[in-house]
Amino acid sequence: MTAQRPRLIVVGGGFAGLWCVRALAGEAIDITLLDRSNHHLFQPLLYQVATGGLSAPAIAAPLRHILRRQRNVRVLMAEVVGIDATARRVRLADGQELDGDWLLVASGSTHAYFGNEHWAPHAHGLKTLDDAMRIRAQVLGAFEHAELSSDPAERAAWLNFVVVGAGPTGVELAGTLAEIARHTLRSEFRSIDPTRARVLLVEGGSRVLSAFEPAMSARAQRQLERLGVEVRTNAAVTAVAADHAIIAGERIATHTVLWAAGVAASPLGALLGAPLDRAGRVLVQPDLSLPGHPRIFVAGDLACLRDRERQIPGVAPAAKQMGTHVAAAIRAQLRKRRVPSFRYRDYGALATIGRMAAVIQMGRLRLSGLPAWWFWLAAHVFFLIGFRNRLVVLIDWAWAYWTHQRHARIMTR
Amino acid sequence: MTAQRPRLIVVGGGFAGLWCVRALAGEAIDITLLDRSNHHLFQPLLYQVATGGLSAPAIAAPLRHILRRQRNVRVLMAEVVGIDATARRVRLADGQELDGDWLLVASGSTHAYFGNEHWAPHAHGLKTLDDAMRIRAQVLGAFEHAELSSDPAERAAWLNFVVVGAGPTGVELAGTLAEIARHTLRSEFRSIDPTRARVLLVEGGSRVLSAFEPAMSARAQRQLERLGVEVRTNAAVTAVAADHAIIAGERIATHTVLWAAGVAASPLGALLGAPLDRAGRVLVQPDLSLPGHPRIFVAGDLACLRDRERQIPGVAPAAKQMGTHVAAAIRAQLRKRRVPSFRYRDYGALATIGRMAAVIQMGRLRLSGLPAWWFWLAAHVFFLIGFRNRLVVLIDWAWAYWTHQRHARIMTR
Repeated sequence: MTAQRPRLIVVGGGFAGLWCVRALAGEAIDITLLDRSNHHLFQPLLYQVATGGLSAPAIAAPLRHILRRQRNVRVLMAEVVGIDATARRVRLADGQELDGDWLLVASGSTHAYFGNEHWAPHAHGLKTLDDAMRIRAQVLGAFEHAELSSDPAERAAWLNFVVVGAGPTGVELAGTLAEIARHTLRSEFRSIDPTRARVLLVEGGSRVLSAFEPAMSARAQRQLERLGVEVRTNAAVTAVAADHAIIAGERIATHTVLWAAGVAASPLGALLGAPLDRAGRVLVQPDLSLPGHPRIFVAGDLACLRDRERQIPGVAPAAKQMGTHVAAAIRAQLRKRRVPSFRYRDYGALATIGRMAAVIQMGRLRLSGLPAWWFWLAAHVFFLIGFRNRLVVLIDWAWAYWTHQRHARIMTR
Repeated sequence: MTAQRPRLIVVGGGFAGLWCVRALAGEAIDITLLDRSNHHLFQPLLYQVATGGLSAPAIAAPLRHILRRQRNVRVLMAEVVGIDATARRVRLADGQELDGDWLLVASGSTHAYFGNEHWAPHAHGLKTLDDAMRIRAQVLGAFEHAELSSDPAERAAWLNFVVVGAGPTGVELAGTLAEIARHTLRSEFRSIDPTRARVLLVEGGSRVLSAFEPAMSARAQRQLERLGVEVRTNAAVTAVAADHAIIAGERIATHTVLWAAGVAASPLGALLGAPLDRAGRVLVQPDLSLPGHPRIFVAGDLACLRDRERQIPGVAPAAKQMGTHVAAAIRAQLRKRRVPSFRYRDYGALATIGRMAAVIQMGRLRLSGLPAWWFWLAAHVFFLIGFRNRLVVLIDWAWAYWTHQRHARIMTR
C-alpha cells in the first residue's frame, strides 16, 4: 500500500460492512476493516446455533479468510471506542487512532431492555455466537436440571420456557424449542417427560410477525400452536427474575427467559454527533451519509432511513444493499460524480417457524407451511458465505430433517 | 425401574464409563451414569478443536443421546463432590446422595503443574471442550494481536508459541500450530508474515513421544522439524508468565504457552481411601476393584495397574478395555462367578504430528509420514461415535486436506 492512496475505514464486518468492502475490490483505495470479533456471522441462522441444530463454525467465517485475496483490504480485530467525525478518525481500545478519507460505520445493533436493564442476567438476547452458546447451554441445562430434581414444582419450573417478543427471532426460537421438547429429546430422559415442557411466546403487540400481513401472522400463529407453542399476544412482561417471570399479571415459574423483544442500535452511533431515532439509530441522508459529512456513511441496522414513506427494515438484505450502495457512493466521489440516493429493493419477507413450518410474503406470493419452509431453507443455504459452509449446513439440515435430531447439543462452559 | 433391581453408579462418561455402561445393555440392573458435562468427548481429536480444524460438536455427542435406547440407564448431568466407599454412596454438588450395589469411578485425569500451579493462568492445558475453545481463541488471538501491534518486539512476542511437553498432545499441538502459521494463514495478513511465527516444542526428557521406540521418536522429531517446529529436548521450563517463559535458561518473549506436560488423576480418586500413585491414580486390584471393596471399581486414566510388568498407559483403547472388563466383572458377580483379572491388549501406539505426518508402532509394524497419517486418520474417523459425526468429520478432514484450510477458526468469548 502506498501513502498516496485514499483510505477508507469500515467499522463492523457484518452484512453492510462486508458487502461494502467486497464491492470495492480492485479500487485504488486502502481499506481497513475493523471488527470486535474475528468472523463474519450469518445472523439469520444464529437461532439454530442457540438451539443446537448447527455448530458455531457452520454459520461463521473468519473475516480475513473471506477477504484474503482482496489485496486492498486489511482486517483488524479491534474494538472501536471513539469516533471523531470532523477528523474522520476512530480510536481503538488499545489507544491506536486511525483516520480515513472515508468512514463507514456499520456496527449494527444489540438487544435492549428499555429501562429494564436489570432483567438482562435473566433474559438473554441473541446477537452474537457467544449469546447463542450461552442460550444453548441454558436451554439444554434446563432439561438436565429438571431430570436431576426430585421436587415436582422445581421440575415444572425448569420445563417452562418463555420467549419474549414475537418477531422473527422470537418465533424461530419458540418454534424450535417446542420441536426439541416434543421430538428431539423425546426418549432421552427417564424421570421427566420432555414433551410436557411448556413454551410460551409472549408478545406485547396484537399479533406475531407484525412485519407480515395480518393473514400471514394468523397462519404463523396456527403453525406455532400446532408445534406446541402457547402464543400470548397483547401480553406485557412486567417482571423477569432468576426463577420467574410475570406475564400479563400471571406469575410463571421459570428459569429460562429468552429475550427477543428489543433492539437498540450500537452505541457507536451516538458518537457521530448526528440526530438519532428512539432506538439510537442514526438519521442518515438519502445517500446514507451523515448530515453535514458527505464522506461519512452509516449503513445496516445502525442507519435509520425512510424510503418512499417506508422505514427500511433491519434485515440482512437491506444491510447488504446499503453496503453495496456505500461502495457505489465512494466510487462516485472518487470519480467526482454525483452520489445517488439509496433505493431499497424489497424482496419480501420470510420467516421460519420450526421444522417444515414457515411463512413467506413476496410481491403477490404468499406461502406457508412446508413449501415456505423449503423455500426458506434453499434461500438461506444459498446465501451462506463460502461453499464449504453451505455443504456442511446442508448435510446438517438434511440429517436433522430426517432424524428429528440436532447434532450440536453440546454444552460448553 | 423397580426397587428390587441391583443398582450400579458410574461416575464419568468418558471411554471407561461409557464402555462399561454399554456393555451392560440388557442386564437386569439399574445404572446411573453421572457426568459433569452433557457429552461424551472423543478426546483424541480434541487438539483439532483447539486449532480450529473441527467444531466442538464434531467430536462430542450428548451422553443421553448415545444411551437413549438403553432402557436400564439414566444419565444425570451432575458433579460428584463426595464418595463414601464403605456405603458405596456418592454425594452430588446439589446435596443429593445416591448409593449403589456397585460403583465404578472413572472420572479421568486433569492437567497438572506439579507445584507450579501459578503457571496455570498463562499455560492452558487441553482436557475439555472448554479448554479447546480457550486455546483456539488464544492462538488465533495471538496472530490478531501481532497484526494490530506496531511495535516489532511486541509483534515478535505474539508470534512465539511455546508448547510444553512432547507427548502425543504436545506433538499434535506443535505440528498443527506450525501448519497453521506456514499454510493456513499464509496470505491472510497484511502487516505480519505468519510464516515467520516460531513454534517451540519443549520437552524435559531426552526425546519426543517417549512411549515409542527411540528410532520412531527420531523420525517424529524429523517430521516436526520439517513442519517448522523447533524441538528442544532435555530442556526444563523454569518460569511461565503472561509475557514470557524461561526455557533451559533462555527467556522467550511469548503470550502463548500451551501446557501438555503434566497429567494428574481426578481428585475423586483421593476420596476412595485407597493408596494412590504419585500422579494421584488409584492402585487397583488386578480385577480393577478397589482393595477391600470388591464391588467398587476404578477404570480409565484414574486407575493405576501394572499388567505383565508394564504400566497400562492412559490411552483411549485401555480405558475402553477397562470399562468393558468392569462390565464383565459385574456380570460375573451377579451370577456368583469368579471375577477374572484384567488383561490389557496392546494394539500399539500411533501419534499424529501434522498434515500428512504421523508415526505408528504396532506389533512389528513401523510406519511414519504419509502412510502413517492415512492409517491414523482412518482409525480415528472409524472410532468416532455415531455415523453423522463420522461423516462430517470426514468431510472436514477431506476439505482441510485439499485446501490447507481450517473451517472452525472462530473465536468465541
